[in-house]
Amino acid sequence: MSSIFGRFLQISTFGESHGVGLGVVIDGVPAGIPIPIEMIQQELDRRRPGTSQYVTQRKETDQVELLSGIHEGRSLGSPIAMLVRNKDARSKDYKAINTLFRPGHADYTYFKKYGIPPQSGGGRASGRETLARVAAGAIAKAILKPYGIHIQAYTIKIGSIQAIHINPDFAETHPLRCADPDKAEDMESLVKQVQSEHDSIGGMIEVIANGVMPGLGDPVFHKLDATIAGAMVSIGAVKGIEFGGGFALTEKKGSESNDPISLSPPISNHAGGILGGISNGAPILIRLAIKPTPSISKDQQTIDILGEEKTISIKGRHDPCICPRICPVAEAMMALVLADALLKRNAELGIMNQIM
Amino acid sequence: MSSIFGRFLQISTFGESHGVGLGVVIDGVPAGIPIPIEMIQQELDRRRPGTSQYVTQRKETDQVELLSGIHEGRSLGSPIAMLVRNKDARSKDYKAINTLFRPGHADYTYFKKYGIPPQSGGGRASGRETLARVAAGAIAKAILKPYGIHIQAYTIKIGSIQAIHINPDFAETHPLRCADPDKAEDMESLVKQVQSEHDSIGGMIEVIANGVMPGLGDPVFHKLDATIAGAMVSIGAVKGIEFGGGFALTEKKGSESNDPISLSPPISNHAGGILGGISNGAPILIRLAIKPTPSISKDQQTIDILGEEKTISIKGRHDPCICPRICPVAEAMMALVLADALLKRNAELGIMNQIM
Amino acid sequence: MSSIFGRFLQISTFGESHGVGLGVVIDGVPAGIPIPIEMIQQELDRRRPGTSQYVTQRKETDQVELLSGIHEGRSLGSPIAMLVRNKDARSKDYKAINTLFRPGHADYTYFKKYGIPPQSGGGRASGRETLARVAAGAIAKAILKPYGIHIQAYTIKIGSIQAIHINPDFAETHPLRCADPDKAEDMESLVKQVQSEHDSIGGMIEVIANGVMPGLGDPVFHKLDATIAGAMVSIGAVKGIEFGGGFALTEKKGSESNDPISLSPPISNHAGGILGGISNGAPILIRLAIKPTPSISKDQQTIDILGEEKTISIKGRHDPCICPRICPVAEAMMALVLADALLKRNAELGIMNQIM
Amino acid sequence: MSSIFGRFLQISTFGESHGVGLGVVIDGVPAGIPIPIEMIQQELDRRRPGTSQYVTQRKETDQVELLSGIHEGRSLGSPIAMLVRNKDARSKDYKAINTLFRPGHADYTYFKKYGIPPQSGGGRASGRETLARVAAGAIAKAILKPYGIHIQAYTIKIGSIQAIHINPDFAETHPLRCADPDKAEDMESLVKQVQSEHDSIGGMIEVIANGVMPGLGDPVFHKLDATIAGAMVSIGAVKGIEFGGGFALTEKKGSESNDPISLSPPISNHAGGILGGISNGAPILIRLAIKPTPSISKDQQTIDILGEEKTISIKGRHDPCICPRICPVAEAMMALVLADALLKRNAELGIMNQIM
Repeated sequence: MSSIFGRFLQISTFGESHGVGLGVVIDGVPAGIPIPIEMIQQELDRRRPGTSQYVTQRKETDQVELLSGIHEGRSLGSPIAMLVRNKDARSKDYKAINTLFRPGHADYTYFKKYGIPPQSGGGRASGRETLARVAAGAIAKAILKPYGIHIQAYTIKIGSIQAIHINPDFAETHPLRCADPDKAEDMESLVKQVQSEHDSIGGMIEVIANGVMPGLGDPVFHKLDATIAGAMVSIGAVKGIEFGGGFALTEKKGSESNDPISLSPPISNHAGGILGGISNGAPILIRLAIKPTPSISKDQQTIDILGEEKTISIKGRHDPCICPRICPVAEAMMALVLADALLKRNAELGIMNQIM
Repeated sequence: MSSIFGRFLQISTFGESHGVGLGVVIDGVPAGIPIPIEMIQQELDRRRPGTSQYVTQRKETDQVELLSGIHEGRSLGSPIAMLVRNKDARSKDYKAINTLFRPGHADYTYFKKYGIPPQSGGGRASGRETLARVAAGAIAKAILKPYGIHIQAYTIKIGSIQAIHINPDFAETHPLRCADPDKAEDMESLVKQVQSEHDSIGGMIEVIANGVMPGLGDPVFHKLDATIAGAMVSIGAVKGIEFGGGFALTEKKGSESNDPISLSPPISNHAGGILGGISNGAPILIRLAIKPTPSISKDQQTIDILGEEKTISIKGRHDPCICPRICPVAEAMMALVLADALLKRNAELGIMNQIM
Repeated sequence: MSSIFGRFLQISTFGESHGVGLGVVIDGVPAGIPIPIEMIQQELDRRRPGTSQYVTQRKETDQVELLSGIHEGRSLGSPIAMLVRNKDARSKDYKAINTLFRPGHADYTYFKKYGIPPQSGGGRASGRETLARVAAGAIAKAILKPYGIHIQAYTIKIGSIQAIHINPDFAETHPLRCADPDKAEDMESLVKQVQSEHDSIGGMIEVIANGVMPGLGDPVFHKLDATIAGAMVSIGAVKGIEFGGGFALTEKKGSESNDPISLSPPISNHAGGILGGISNGAPILIRLAIKPTPSISKDQQTIDILGEEKTISIKGRHDPCICPRICPVAEAMMALVLADALLKRNAELGIMNQIM
Repeated sequence: MSSIFGRFLQISTFGESHGVGLGVVIDGVPAGIPIPIEMIQQELDRRRPGTSQYVTQRKETDQVELLSGIHEGRSLGSPIAMLVRNKDARSKDYKAINTLFRPGHADYTYFKKYGIPPQSGGGRASGRETLARVAAGAIAKAILKPYGIHIQAYTIKIGSIQAIHINPDFAETHPLRCADPDKAEDMESLVKQVQSEHDSIGGMIEVIANGVMPGLGDPVFHKLDATIAGAMVSIGAVKGIEFGGGFALTEKKGSESNDPISLSPPISNHAGGILGGISNGAPILIRLAIKPTPSISKDQQTIDILGEEKTISIKGRHDPCICPRICPVAEAMMALVLADALLKRNAELGIMNQIM
C-alpha cells in the first residue's frame, strides 16, 4: 500500500527508474470527464528534464502511453492506467558507485529494509517516480477544472535569495520557475555558481490553489491541511511545509494571527485558506522547504555495503537545484488531494440535499 | 472516515467538547501487551488543563473509563475503547457569542460545511478532541516500549524567545514545557505579559523519537515523514512542520546538507532520522509551528450568521500559549505513527524470514 | 481494523459480551439527518432476547446510551458513538467449562490466535457483538429512508420446513420471524422438539431491499453483491449466501437464468437486483444459510487447553434456533452496505452533474 | 477504489477487454520472494480460452509483460506491475447489438451508472478482467508457497450432474476441470448438447486451501470467511458461496453440525476450516454457485437504449459453461485473501514475540 494514495480518488503507482518505465492507475474517476491526452502530455513536459541548462540534460522524451480508462477524450468511469517508458537509462554512470551508500539518498535505508544493494537509479526513491504523480495529477486537474479550481506552483527562494513580488505567470516562463522577475537573474547566477562547484543548492516553492469553495476537507484526522501535508512531504526532497502564515506565526500574537472576518475582501490569509481542517473559500496557500539535491560530484564521506569507509563522487547528470522540477509534482499532489476532497464533499452534499 | 486514523493500528475517535464526553476505539492492538490503566491516566494528566497558571483553569479531572479490550492489565487483542466524560461544561461563557464566527476558529467553515451555527465548545474542532488522541497514544507507547522506542515533545520557542540548550528532562517539570532552563523565565514573562493584554502568543515545539530501528516506513506515499506530517498537521493549531534540518536546508548546499555516513557516531542529523521515507536508525526529529490560540478576549472584527459585521470578544478561560498542551498530543501522534509502521514492518519481516 | 467496516460510512465496533458493554462509532454520517433515538432503541429491541420462548431468556434491557454525534434528533456530521451496557452477566454458567474448547465455537481459534483461554461469554465471538451492528444499522436506515429504500429480513426455513408463501408483515409479528403463516406452527413445533432434546436447529433467512435505485455499487472488487457477501458472512452463524436465483441457477440454462428485459413489469429476478455488481432497480434479494446454534447442552466430545480429551455440556440459556435473532442483524448489514454505496454514488453523480 | 483489493497486499487492476490490454499493480509484496515469470505465465495459461472445445475459441495468447517490481526472479519490495495486451479483438461480432442491452449482462446497469452505451466487449464487466486477478494471484501463491499453503479449484457440478468422488488431480487434466472421473463423460455430453442448442449451462466449483495454519483472519468484520466471500462474489458469474457444510447445515441439528474436537484426525469439517472467522488448521473448503453464461445466441427479449423492445441474439464465441474458466480465478482470489491475512498475522506475531 506504500504506493497507493487517496480515499475516493485512488492512485496506485509503479515502476523503477532504470526498469521498463513508470506508471500509474487512477481509480474512482467518474465517467464523462473531458481528459485530452495532450493535456496529460503537457503536464509531463512541464516536469521533464532537458528544458534548460539548470535541469538534468537527460534526453527523456517521456511520452505517455494510455493503457485504459479514457475513450475518445473522455473518462469511461473505469481505472485510467498510463505508462511512461524509460528511454535513456545510462546505468554505467551509476555502476561505479554501486556498492556505496550515497549520503542524503535512500540507499542505506533501502538496503536495511529490503536487503537490496544501492541501486543504479535509486529504485522507487528516484525522482523519476514523480512522473506517475504528474500524470495522475493531470487527471485530477481535469476533475477540478469544471469547478474553476486552478493550482500553480513556483519557486520563491533559492539559497538565501528570496522572491518578494510574486508573479506566477512569469514563473511559468522561467527555467527555474522563479516567481519574482527582479530576482530571476540572481537566482540563475547562484545556481550556475553552485553547479560550477560540483555542488547543489536548496530552495523553497509556494503552491497556491485558487477557486476552492468552502467546505472541502474534514475535521480531526482528515483535515484538508493534514492531507495536503502528507501528500507534499511524500515528495522526495521536501523537508518542511507551512500553511498560510506558517512558521512566522510562531512569533505572532493572536490579535495579529487571526484573519478578521468581514464583508469586504479579506485583508489577510494567515490561515492559508483552511480553518479547522476545512477550506474557507480563500486561496489555499502553502510553502515547501526543498533540500539541496543530494547527488553531487563533490567528494563525500560514506561507507560501502561491507561496512568500509569510502569516498564517493556521484557522476552523471544532476539538477543543481530541484525546485523547478518539484513545482509540477507539488501541483499534482495538490490537485489529487482537492479532487479527492471534492468527491467526498459531493457525497455528503448529495445526501444533505435529499433531506431538504 | 474523518475521525479514523492509521492503517494497521487504527483509531476511531468521537465526542463533542460540550456533550457526554470524548472517546476512542483502538483496533489492531495484538494480544498480551502490558497496558496498565494508570499509564493511560498519566498521559491524560500530562495534557490536562489546570496544572499551572499558563493553561486553562478549567477543573477537568479527565478520568479515563475503560470500556473494552484490556483485561487484568493486558490487551485482549480486541478493540480497546475508552471514554473521558465531560464534567465542567460551562456553556454560558460561550452563549453570548453563539451567532458570531470567531476569527481563527472553525466556526465559519463548520457552518458552511454542516449548516450548524457556531457551537458552544467548538464541536469536533475544540482542543478537547485531543484527549482521545492522547489516550490512544498511550496504547501506542505501550506497543513501542518493548522495542526501546521513546518519544518526547517540548517547547523550543515562544514568540521570539528561542531555546538553545535543549534539556528534555527539564521540560517535563516546567509549566510551559520549556526545554531550555536558561530561557524558561523569559518565556514565562512573555506569556504573562501577553495574558495581561488579553491576547495570546505562538510558539514552536520539537518532537524527538529515540531508539527507532532502521526500516520503518515505506517508499512513495507512505513515507514515514509523510505519515508523520499528516498526523501532526491534523492537530488543531499546527501551521507548519519540518524534519531534521528543515527550512534551514533551503539555504544550504548539498555538501552541507547531506549527512556523511561513517562508522563513527554521526556528526549531523539533517535528515531527521528518515531517508527516502524510511527510518535510518538516527533519532527522528521534527519541529512544529504552533499558531497563537485564536480565542482571545481582545476585541476582534467578525460577522454573524446573518452576515452582519460585528465585534467579538471571547470570554472564558483560554490558554495564552498552547505549546505545552500540544506536546503530549504530538507525542501521541508520533507514537501512533511509529506503532503502525512497526506492525507493517513486522508483517514484511515475518514473510522475509520464512523464505530464508 | 478487524472491527472497522465500510469505506465512506465507516463503523468501528467494540466491547466484550461479559465486560462493560458493547458499542459502536459511526463516522461519515452527513449533518442534518433526522435520527430519533427511539428509532435506534426500537431496532435494538427487535434483536433483543427474552421476547419469546424460542430465544434466550436473559433479561438484557439493552438500553442504548448516546455518547456523541446526534443533537436534538439530528446528526451533527461528527462521529455518532453509542454504548449498550451489559447488565445481566451470569458468568457462573460459563465458569464450569472455562478450560474446554466448545465445538463449533471460536474458543479454539481464539486460543491459537490470542493465547487467551476459552472465554466466558466468547469475547468478540459472542452473538452480543451484533448489538453494535444493529445500532449502527439504525443510523444507516435513517440515511436510506429519505430515498425510499426499505429493508426487511425474515425466516424462510427451519430444519427442512420451508416457507412457500412469503408474507414479510406476518414475519414481523411472529416469534421465529417465520414469513409463511401456513408454516409457522410446524416451525414452532420443530423448534420446541429440538429444544426438548437439548439440541439446536439450523435454518435460512431471506433479506430483501426494496426501492433501491439503479447505479449503486461498483465494478470488479467493490461489486454491490461482493460487498453484501462480505458483510453478511461476517455475521457469526452464516455459512452461506446466495443472490437471486442463487444455487438453483447451477442447474439452469442461460435461456432460463437470464432475466428478460422489457417495458412491462419484470417477470423474474434471478439476478437478485444486481448485474455486473451494480443495482438494476429490481429488489435486492439474498438468502443466508444459518447453522444450528453451536451452544447445546447435549454432551459433546472436545479437548481442554492442556490437550486432554473431555466431554462438554454447555449449560446456560441458548437459542435453539438463531434465525429470528439474525434477521435484524442482517438488515443492519444490508443497510450499512447500501448507505455506503449511496454516499459513493452521490460523490460521482455530483461530479458528473457539474460537467453537464 | 472499485478496482483495488486487499489491505496489506493490495492489488489495483485496470483495462478494458477491447482496449490496449488488462493489467494489475500489486503493492505490499515483501522483497526477496522468488517469483519466476514462467509461474505467472503458467497461471494465465490455465485460465486461457482456446484450450478445448468447451471454452471460447478466441486466439488470445495472453503473454504477460512484466513492467516493474521483479528483478532476476525475485521481488524487489516495490509494486509489481504486469500487462497482458489484447491481441484478437474482433469487435465486429459485437457491433450488431451495440445499442441493445444483453439480458444477464451488465449493459443496462453500466448504462444507468456511467451513461455509456452497451460496450463491445463489456468494459470492466467482461470476463477478460479476470486475467489481472490471475496474474496477481500467481504472486500471492508465491508468497504462500514457503508456508506450504496450496490452493486448488475444480468443477463439482454442471447442470444436475454432481461429482461424488473428488479427485483434484484429475480435474487439472480435464477440459471442464471435472473433479470426478466417473462423471466427466456425462458432464461433457451435457455441455455439448447445450452448446448445440445455442444455450449455456450453470454449475458449481469447489475451492480447497490445504496447509493453512490456525490463526489467520480476524474477528467481527474481517473474518476470514467474510473476506473470502467478498472476494469470491466479486467474480462475475458467482451467484452464491457456502463454507464447509454450507446450505446443508440449515437442515441439521447442532449435535450434527458441530465438528467434534479430538486428538485423533478430525472426522468432519462442517466449519470449512474457519471458526469465529479464524482458520483452525483444517482445510479451508468453499463451494461457488456459477450461473450459466449469459451470452447465448438463442433469441432473447430485451430493449435498446431508446427504450424500444427488441429481440437479441448474441453472436460470437462464448463458453457454454464457464466453470472451468472460473477455477483459476477463484484460486487467485483465495490466494490473495490468504496472503493478505498472512501478512496481518505476521504483523501481530512479530509484536507478540517481542513481548515474550
